[in-house]
Amino acid sequence: MSSPAAAGAIKALVFDTFGTVVDWRGSLTAELSQWGIERGVSADWTALVDAWRGAYRPALDEVRFGKRPWTDLDTLHREALDRLLPVHRMEHLGEAERDWMVRGWHRLNPWGDSVEGLTRLKRRFIIAPLSNGTVALLLNMARRAGLPWDMILGSDIFRHYKPDAETYLGAAALLGLSPESVMMVAAHNPDLQAARHYGLSTAFVVRPAEYGPHQTSNLSAEEPWDYVVAGLDELAGRLGA
Amino acid sequence: MSSPAAAGAIKALVFDTFGTVVDWRGSLTAELSQWGIERGVSADWTALVDAWRGAYRPALDEVRFGKRPWTDLDTLHREALDRLLPVHRMEHLGEAERDWMVRGWHRLNPWGDSVEGLTRLKRRFIIAPLSNGTVALLLNMARRAGLPWDMILGSDIFRHYKPDAETYLGAAALLGLSPESVMMVAAHNPDLQAARHYGLSTAFVVRPAEYGPHQTSNLSAEEPWDYVVAGLDELAGRLGA
Repeated sequence: MSSPAAAGAIKALVFDTFGTVVDWRGSLTAELSQWGIERGVSADWTALVDAWRGAYRPALDEVRFGKRPWTDLDTLHREALDRLLPVHRMEHLGEAERDWMVRGWHRLNPWGDSVEGLTRLKRRFIIAPLSNGTVALLLNMARRAGLPWDMILGSDIFRHYKPDAETYLGAAALLGLSPESVMMVAAHNPDLQAARHYGLSTAFVVRPAEYGPHQTSNLSAEEPWDYVVAGLDELAGRLGA
Repeated sequence: MSSPAAAGAIKALVFDTFGTVVDWRGSLTAELSQWGIERGVSADWTALVDAWRGAYRPALDEVRFGKRPWTDLDTLHREALDRLLPVHRMEHLGEAERDWMVRGWHRLNPWGDSVEGLTRLKRRFIIAPLSNGTVALLLNMARRAGLPWDMILGSDIFRHYKPDAETYLGAAALLGLSPESVMMVAAHNPDLQAARHYGLSTAFVVRPAEYGPHQTSNLSAEEPWDYVVAGLDELAGRLGA
């Protein structure tokens, strides 16, 4: 935490969402398990969810590296699900069920500190997600979970996925701010590495349970980020909000 | 009001801002008059504000019709101000003062029914401005005035001004909704004509004082819009919010 960005110079906070603000793994596993019980569908839901998330980065990179045109995250989630269901012996699930499962990514629950932390941070700073989800996904998530965003910076605004420059610099431009007065808040070191590369300030939130009990990465700050905190409530306190 | 769109089919409301949600003329005239008194600058502020707004549509149309590349509204406001100040014997005003005046468009006050109406509408519908202002302008306005938007649809997201198709259809696409499930709310018949042309639902808000005591246009609905109301609180009531 050498030379932390002064809180007074920060005007806006932009947040990674999946893993940083919401618990995708716990939310999806719980929802699908309950749904399986009600429908009599038996599966290793945790394994499915982990494999589904595992398909995320390769799918984004196909778009990022120009192997296919812009494709939104709902579509990428659906394609991955369609590949995974036969592996998990659920190829019998129909269109409506698959749609509902994909929309599960719109229904993720926040970590326990997220709503209070964001509410406090909003008093002093502009707050917005800067996520690879679509605007609609983030909007549905926010209204359901009570995330009090000022603005929603979905990837479909930029037609680029993080860590492309267009997302970080595009966010600062839309907010009408210099990159250094925008702080990227994320639970993932690579997201912050890219944000810093493009001139943004950085805050690392330690989320050691994001990938479940056996998480091996992003357990600590790998660079001297401007702030390192254990939750969004702690970030609010550190920033005087 | 023939065949009004059923409130149950509407998922999102998008709002014209200048004139519909905020009182640009009253806000700017009051702020500049006060500033003139404090600084000893004497001028016909009402005439300046009216001339400034008068320069708006021609400036947008230069961009819309391809006579110049995309240029944001702050820049267009500044160019118009630079042309008007000599006419009003204020060519002596410097850079900082001109910047502050242009930023006055970020500091507009809401009509008396706007905050309550939007707060009620937000319970049931996604709400967002769909404005020719930039995201930053609308964000600054919202935080200052307490406008509880879910999302901000500024013209710089689309790099198009209303009434271009890209704004209305782009808004529906980003919200993940069909055009007819999005309702355009505006105090201006031409905005609703375009919105309806592109398939959106429509609500007209009568704002007879927008242009001051001698307003001659948009005093009534010129087509059978889906809803016609006298304020956003009335709209909330009509839509059961």
